[in-house]
Amino acid sequence: MRYKTVITRWDESGSRQLEDEMTVEFPLTIILNGRELATLLCLPEKLESLAVGFLAAEGLIEKAADLKDVIVDEHSGLVQITTHKDVKLHSENLFRRVITSGCGQVATFYKAGAACLEWISSPLSVPAPTLAGLALDFQKRSVEYRATGGVHSAGLAWGKELVCFAEDIGRHNALDKILGECLLQGWPTADKVLLTSGRISSEAVLKAARMGVPILISRAAPTSLAVNLARELGLTLVGFARGRRFNVYSETGRIIFSP
Amino acid sequence: MRYKTVITRWDESGSRQLEDEMTVEFPLTIILNGRELATLLCLPEKLESLAVGFLAAEGLIEKAADLKDVIVDEHSGLVQITTHKDVKLHSENLFRRVITSGCGQVATFYKAGAACLEWISSPLSVPAPTLAGLALDFQKRSVEYRATGGVHSAGLAWGKELVCFAEDIGRHNALDKILGECLLQGWPTADKVLLTSGRISSEAVLKAARMGVPILISRAAPTSLAVNLARELGLTLVGFARGRRFNVYSETGRIIFSP
Repeated sequence: MRYKTVITRWDESGSRQLEDEMTVEFPLTIILNGRELATLLCLPEKLESLAVGFLAAEGLIEKAADLKDVIVDEHSGLVQITTHKDVKLHSENLFRRVITSGCGQVATFYKAGAACLEWISSPLSVPAPTLAGLALDFQKRSVEYRATGGVHSAGLAWGKELVCFAEDIGRHNALDKILGECLLQGWPTADKVLLTSGRISSEAVLKAARMGVPILISRAAPTSLAVNLARELGLTLVGFARGRRFNVYSETGRIIFSP
Repeated sequence: MRYKTVITRWDESGSRQLEDEMTVEFPLTIILNGRELATLLCLPEKLESLAVGFLAAEGLIEKAADLKDVIVDEHSGLVQITTHKDVKLHSENLFRRVITSGCGQVATFYKAGAACLEWISSPLSVPAPTLAGLALDFQKRSVEYRATGGVHSAGLAWGKELVCFAEDIGRHNALDKILGECLLQGWPTADKVLLTSGRISSEAVLKAARMGVPILISRAAPTSLAVNLARELGLTLVGFARGRRFNVYSETGRIIFSP
């Protein structure tokens, strides 16, 4: 499933607008015997298999015969599952695979947009070659990744310098390490650029917005939901930063393209 | 942080044992005001920043001044955080970023090994070239990934054929789609091979073990915890499957190396 939108591409020849396609990120809420269990951010294909597989992976069902009914509503992003026997849910089972937003129901939050986060009003502006240089420096720092092929990294830049760098096996953990460092050190974030090695999902955008960082860069692709949230929140989202080129998906005004 | 272990490498010249290093995956449990909040699977670096950043990302603290005390115990994998004001935790806030094991406390589970999952006793054996071929077919199927750079895939093979294929923005979702498909179709799994495009984390190993699939393959790297769990559970773990070579991390007996 694809999603098309207009983006700004920058490379050696300058900047231009073009239509680009990206992967759809879709919030699917699983309701088990009338109770909201989890919201998965997913690609909207094979939703019935995903919901049933999730329950099985969590040990809540064992076989197809445990299922009484599975109703997939693609329009509203809900899967309602009824089992023959009641499934006991301790508070410990109330997992969620999405980051809680701090403003109520997660699924609703995702659908309503980023209603409870503030618009990012930072006046920061950065020349395009500086951003490309930061992305390159950041990639060079990711030594662990090159050595064992299993690690994501995140970084924070001020001016032309990487001031903070963290690695983790999880993309979100690496970003949380940067967020924690800012908090513990008392660093302001409105004048900084956040870098991540992984795909830009809606969760990464929400983390950047919560930190108040105005620019988020990755060498990987963003999802549709990440782009939509970035546009709603006033975050400058830069993807596919590789060598001397990148794509800008939102708030292009913070990037100085002229030489 | 690195971890070394003996693995079996297979390529055109045959198979041989060698020492290889891999990324450490570490379960870190965050205790907030005396209450277990979440267990993060992480790289054990900057644990204080990770714990504080996680709380901030979840909206549970706002600034460093909210913190009274942060005690990191690397040995036991615990971070105990005390805040000045009590933080209200609704059941909705009791997120966990790890997959629940279905056998009690997750952190304990991870540390005690895979005590509540059964040893995988499947007598399946597969020639090395067949495995390499399956990995190659699987990579060719990942069309979405090539088009937009943002999608993981998972597959299930029987003999020399891919019998099931799923894509998602999340590695775990893709695996759950396969698991759900097996359940809904009533397919046996003890004679199949599971393929994933992403890094092999402990969660992927636990999913494979829960499904009862005896062989798990990826073109990416496994983590230390994934390898240890695979060895405890009797799962054959194959990583770095690229072209006509791969590494085997556990239960090598299921692979036929001789021509």
